[in-house]
Amino acid sequence: MTYCVGMMLDRGLVMMSDTRTNAGVDNISTFKKLHVWEEPGERVLMLMSAGNLATTQAVVSTLDERTKAPQERAPSLLETPSMFQAAQLVAKTLKDVIAAHAEAGQNADSAFRATLIFGGQIAGSPPRLFLIYPEGNFIEAGDDTPFFQIGETKYGRPIIVRAYDRAATFEEALKLLLVSFDSTVKANLSVGLPFDYQLYTTDTYALGPKGRVKADDPYFRSISSAWGDKLKEALDSLPNFTLQA
Amino acid sequence: MTYCVGMMLDRGLVMMSDTRTNAGVDNISTFKKLHVWEEPGERVLMLMSAGNLATTQAVVSTLDERTKAPQERAPSLLETPSMFQAAQLVAKTLKDVIAAHAEAGQNADSAFRATLIFGGQIAGSPPRLFLIYPEGNFIEAGDDTPFFQIGETKYGRPIIVRAYDRAATFEEALKLLLVSFDSTVKANLSVGLPFDYQLYTTDTYALGPKGRVKADDPYFRSISSAWGDKLKEALDSLPNFTLQA
Repeated sequence: MTYCVGMMLDRGLVMMSDTRTNAGVDNISTFKKLHVWEEPGERVLMLMSAGNLATTQAVVSTLDERTKAPQERAPSLLETPSMFQAAQLVAKTLKDVIAAHAEAGQNADSAFRATLIFGGQIAGSPPRLFLIYPEGNFIEAGDDTPFFQIGETKYGRPIIVRAYDRAATFEEALKLLLVSFDSTVKANLSVGLPFDYQLYTTDTYALGPKGRVKADDPYFRSISSAWGDKLKEALDSLPNFTLQA
Repeated sequence: MTYCVGMMLDRGLVMMSDTRTNAGVDNISTFKKLHVWEEPGERVLMLMSAGNLATTQAVVSTLDERTKAPQERAPSLLETPSMFQAAQLVAKTLKDVIAAHAEAGQNADSAFRATLIFGGQIAGSPPRLFLIYPEGNFIEAGDDTPFFQIGETKYGRPIIVRAYDRAATFEEALKLLLVSFDSTVKANLSVGLPFDYQLYTTDTYALGPKGRVKADDPYFRSISSAWGDKLKEALDSLPNFTLQA
């Protein structure tokens, strides 16, 4: 499993992913699931993936290859004129990779599936954020649904639904995400630290701060333990149920 | 889907279930998923179900039938000498019902599956709480895992994991469960109000208070709206993430 969240704020985009991959609970590894492309002053693209690791790595490598050799750039992620067309390119690449491997075995395509969160900004339009399905279609975040989750989405969802604020600072958004990730890690062994994050500030056309939150990160450890206490305090402060006699 | 939680406390057992059943989002109904049997002074048994409604109703009806006609009581839920044997009886009934309908169609058994939470007390031993799988086997709650969830368990799990306290009063436990149910209802359309609850105080051998929390219940509405504010306050009170320059 995996847990990734992509979030739109007034000031830009926030991407956070865990790094655990597993083939059974006795075969776990750490892999980067957050990938970026940048053409300073013109575009920033960010991609996170959940699903089959071979598929997601093939998608990223295929997209990467096309950005490196100028004569093979068409179509390249660094040349698409809009975020919509960039999303189409990523989606088609994903669909093609899954289809290529599905041929190997009957009914095997489901095992090669992956889901992506893709966001960024290309000069001329505002930042956009997409959720790309293994079928190659996608949906876009908007005012009503300003964030996407992929992977093990359920444990960490209630806190985001309750506390998301599009006017939040990046620091507040990262705190919210770490609480959401902490709830997920506590419940699902296949989601694990370290967590990677990448920020993007609207209209900068350059990658913002990024980082990796490791298991021994003192801030994360303090948030994780303080959150349990705060939840209990919050619950205690609500009036108790009254049983009818 | 469904959401049910059975919880062991020092003072007894708490059971809570939602009441929504659905065959597609356009075909929803309200059904009781919490069933009880009582032999005052001697035993109290409580059962909650998640899964195929025909299966769970057949299980309850079969168990019920056997308690009504004295000459057909063997084996009856009201005569098993221990909670363990009562759980075995419920589990076997569940497995038999699934098997009987699975014959109707190849691969159809998965569609007839159900999972149960079964708890209570029979004179001579302490209260016990079981999670019964569709395969007819089961596990028992203990000090390390003092509660069971079935159905849509994920959204509402983090708050229970963080705030469960086995010394809690029934009123505190019901508050915790309503917060957990509220998080689930907000995220999954197939879990819905009203919620049924049933309490049992250890060594009373009589059913405790029970009730139904409806969508317009003023206490539930106040908890639901206050909880969002409390969560935001709790998050605000944590220190923000610090971005490295």
